[in-house]
Amino acid sequence: MRYFFEIAYDGTNYHGWQRQENATSVQQVVEEALSTILRSEISIVGSGRTDTGVHCEQQFFHIDIPKDVKTDQLPYKLNSLLPKDISISNIWPVVADAHARFSATSRSYQYRITAKKNPFLNKYATHFYKPLSIEMMNEACKKLIGEHDFESFSKVKTEVNNFICDITLAKWTSANDLIFFDISANRFLRGMVRAIVGTLLKVGENKMDLDEFERVIAANDRKEAGAAAPAHGLFLTSVRYPESIFIRES
Amino acid sequence: MRYFFEIAYDGTNYHGWQRQENATSVQQVVEEALSTILRSEISIVGSGRTDTGVHCEQQFFHIDIPKDVKTDQLPYKLNSLLPKDISISNIWPVVADAHARFSATSRSYQYRITAKKNPFLNKYATHFYKPLSIEMMNEACKKLIGEHDFESFSKVKTEVNNFICDITLAKWTSANDLIFFDISANRFLRGMVRAIVGTLLKVGENKMDLDEFERVIAANDRKEAGAAAPAHGLFLTSVRYPESIFIRES
Repeated sequence: MRYFFEIAYDGTNYHGWQRQENATSVQQVVEEALSTILRSEISIVGSGRTDTGVHCEQQFFHIDIPKDVKTDQLPYKLNSLLPKDISISNIWPVVADAHARFSATSRSYQYRITAKKNPFLNKYATHFYKPLSIEMMNEACKKLIGEHDFESFSKVKTEVNNFICDITLAKWTSANDLIFFDISANRFLRGMVRAIVGTLLKVGENKMDLDEFERVIAANDRKEAGAAAPAHGLFLTSVRYPESIFIRES
Repeated sequence: MRYFFEIAYDGTNYHGWQRQENATSVQQVVEEALSTILRSEISIVGSGRTDTGVHCEQQFFHIDIPKDVKTDQLPYKLNSLLPKDISISNIWPVVADAHARFSATSRSYQYRITAKKNPFLNKYATHFYKPLSIEMMNEACKKLIGEHDFESFSKVKTEVNNFICDITLAKWTSANDLIFFDISANRFLRGMVRAIVGTLLKVGENKMDLDEFERVIAANDRKEAGAAAPAHGLFLTSVRYPESIFIRES
């Protein structure tokens, strides 16, 4: 029986989602907890990766569990065993071919900036004290919407050879001393959101105009885009799936 | 010339506000930064103390600065020198006899509880998963309002011999998985808010009824009250002064 798990984590102390040698990842910590509870070696399949230090309010992974294993206490047991900076919010039975990565239709990220030094946000927002034009950044965002080749915003070391993403939302808002950037797409390339934020900040600081921003997109060259914005301001906020993959218990 | 400084800090890494030997306090870190910038040994007078691990969104301290020293860049310089978990929000000239501690008319605290494990609140709210009756806790709060002897909620080791406080607000509210307790008074005794919260949680869990709660207040004995709630859920949220102490620059 296949299950989807909903997970959130503070990325400060992890080298990202993906399991790797010589560094602690969220995937590894969750797999170890699940293996302890289910008494067998468990590998999980996540809906995507996050980079070192990036936070996550909602992401999903799937595993298969034998039908005779009771799962109702599983989130509670996992949360007791997992460290305080990782939590399991929910668990759902799904259809057999549902896949945490390939079934996802949309991912959303939020980037958070604080204009004022804030002791409570020092791990959860980037301190950027220079004035920013939200209006100009939103003008530039219009050029991101739709299906484009985003190689200019992809890490150079990557396994993919298709850089086409369909961006459905890209918008800056502000509230008091905080500035938020929300972006949704069918898929994201490695380092893409932080490269887009870094480039849009140049537009917001009036160091890059809209024509230049368009040229950056068209260049298909990472060197043309701005520096990646720091990881600790970035949150994966949601991942969406078709309703039909979830098995509703009657 | 006397100045009031407004300060905020994440208390996680500090042994409270007050300077002490063999442990790092917020006061010490701020005094060291000010002494470096002003090139003389500076002692600051805070509006009150906070315990180890307690957070602060707004507190004040005062110092005297010679009139010929320019102060407009002081908050910026201080914030550059202070660690990320302490920030100076503002600085005001005040009348010569204004006193950060004795001129304060009211202090407010908020205690934060999360019913659900939340990776982003693990340092900023207490995880309390058992059901709580907000209604019963608010009934008990009515008995706190006004001028009473609160020795039952004071740490036994204390320098004061007057335990009378005038509580003007004591109220629980909830929003989604979060529960907040707001309390304001002219003054607070050492450990008072956390002892009150710990006792009110017993009421909320139906382990103490309203008559017992009244008897706890009347007992003037710390042993009658509940265990202190954990420090990391507590925030000093504001300190109030009469408008007349601030010098308005024309």
